[in-house]
Amino acid sequence: MAEHFQEDSVSSVAVRIDAEHPQGVLFDPHQPQLRVTDLGVVRGDGVFETMLVIDGAVRKLTPHLNRLRRSADITEIGIPPEESWRAAIQLGLEEFRTRGGLPEQLSIRLTATRGVDGEPASEDPQFAGTYWALLAPVPATMLASRGKPIAVTLLDRGYRSDAAEQSPWLMLSAKTLSYAVNMAAGRWARQHGFDDVIFLSSDGQVLEAPTSTVLMYSEDAEGTPVLTTPTLNTGILPGTSQGAIFAAAERAGWKLAYGPVTPEDLKAAPHVWLLSSVRLASPVNRIDDHQLEVSTELTATLMDFLAQDLAETYPTED
Amino acid sequence: MAEHFQEDSVSSVAVRIDAEHPQGVLFDPHQPQLRVTDLGVVRGDGVFETMLVIDGAVRKLTPHLNRLRRSADITEIGIPPEESWRAAIQLGLEEFRTRGGLPEQLSIRLTATRGVDGEPASEDPQFAGTYWALLAPVPATMLASRGKPIAVTLLDRGYRSDAAEQSPWLMLSAKTLSYAVNMAAGRWARQHGFDDVIFLSSDGQVLEAPTSTVLMYSEDAEGTPVLTTPTLNTGILPGTSQGAIFAAAERAGWKLAYGPVTPEDLKAAPHVWLLSSVRLASPVNRIDDHQLEVSTELTATLMDFLAQDLAETYPTED
Repeated sequence: MAEHFQEDSVSSVAVRIDAEHPQGVLFDPHQPQLRVTDLGVVRGDGVFETMLVIDGAVRKLTPHLNRLRRSADITEIGIPPEESWRAAIQLGLEEFRTRGGLPEQLSIRLTATRGVDGEPASEDPQFAGTYWALLAPVPATMLASRGKPIAVTLLDRGYRSDAAEQSPWLMLSAKTLSYAVNMAAGRWARQHGFDDVIFLSSDGQVLEAPTSTVLMYSEDAEGTPVLTTPTLNTGILPGTSQGAIFAAAERAGWKLAYGPVTPEDLKAAPHVWLLSSVRLASPVNRIDDHQLEVSTELTATLMDFLAQDLAETYPTED
Repeated sequence: MAEHFQEDSVSSVAVRIDAEHPQGVLFDPHQPQLRVTDLGVVRGDGVFETMLVIDGAVRKLTPHLNRLRRSADITEIGIPPEESWRAAIQLGLEEFRTRGGLPEQLSIRLTATRGVDGEPASEDPQFAGTYWALLAPVPATMLASRGKPIAVTLLDRGYRSDAAEQSPWLMLSAKTLSYAVNMAAGRWARQHGFDDVIFLSSDGQVLEAPTSTVLMYSEDAEGTPVLTTPTLNTGILPGTSQGAIFAAAERAGWKLAYGPVTPEDLKAAPHVWLLSSVRLASPVNRIDDHQLEVSTELTATLMDFLAQDLAETYPTED
């Protein structure tokens, strides 16, 4: 982790969006930018998205912007129009080029907070909060560990699988800044000898990982591959990587299924991965004390499926 | 709310604590102070406390500092020693005096974040994160509404009452910055004609309100007053106002009880209040469609109980 952010500190680029700069304006991410009264830090009251850029092409940009809009709608936070976010990303990428070259792989994090309470930054609700894009090279340690097998532990997330339907005020499927529990579960896992966590509902359904989506592989009686992911009814975040893989798998003639998935299903699956936008597909080789087989070939296929999304990305090159 | 923060904007005082300034240093809260990579805003990864100052005396300072320490321990965030927080508060209060006078009532919010990921602010873990105190006059609207009856709705918090015991990684009883759900529940309540929320566990126990503690009043067969609050076993935050009231009530010969409390208990109680450090005791006159009687006299008694804590506060005057 230290290596990551040392790298960041010399080469990350940040772009703010506000009413005066709807196309974005550069700022130095190593200088203070936020007031201590910003609700983003006062209450974890904001939404975000993280995406990957390879060779200047932003992967799954439209799905990420759509999900940002969805999270903003759920939390009732006004956010700039899609064009502003696209322009800010473009500006950030151009800044890397101006500085001497775009790193081969970058992460982009878009963040929108509710702004300073009672002091909207603009009369226009689209610009009333605080908005920025942070672009940083993907750390070498993450590049090196991509696709490497991981051990996960199953932890109870505390919610019933019907909590999202029964209790909309919990905003379970919004990607908010209130991620302290997700981080705590990750620390717990590492302190107990695991790399990551898969959350279960209190009534025993498989949900998602703190920062990624669960994917299972099996084959039907005819030998056709079947990909299964937990149902969104549980209030989990709709995974953009899972969505891209499903789209490509369908084109390849694979079958797709949305669970309910139980821990027993998960352990009975021939192969399991955690999917995220920057780490991509991480094969799971152990779930608590249960060993799983890892298929390097299938992991490569999933990576190929993810790469097919490139054609749909935002044209960042002139 | 708008009135609150317009007032803030002319008269709030902020004090930062860091390794170079273990006694605190003033900064302008209207200027940017935090980097966008601070985990406080990136992940809502920090802890806080809010307390009240009346005529220069900080109410319940030691219980608040103890609870801040407890939240920091649970979340594994290093924080400055108690002396630093006390010195920072002292500095903030002196700044108000220097500027021409201490407002009769102030709120103080202490915040500690995990800091910038991978770039600790100091080698000393007590100063590795980001720390500040924000002092602001209690808004006139809040002063005017204090002690006024409120209508509340019961909302499912989604967790079972044993989630805190079963799932320590949820950190249920830490007061973290990840408050987006609490804010969302409050918005939901106001949109549905209520002033506030009382959360229930998914198995039907009364928990707490998004930013306050539930207190019930009844009398036993001999006519002795009995105060009841939900048990901490459910993972609710230990209320500092509830603690101060219980201490004073015990001295007055009242009986004290810690629930489990059901919604039926709550509606059967002669009187119910929500307690918080700045709003103090708010009598509840309606729980969903159930009307409750309000006792102006008992509310005044609770306010008196809270005021007894004054003698235990930090000596801020020379």
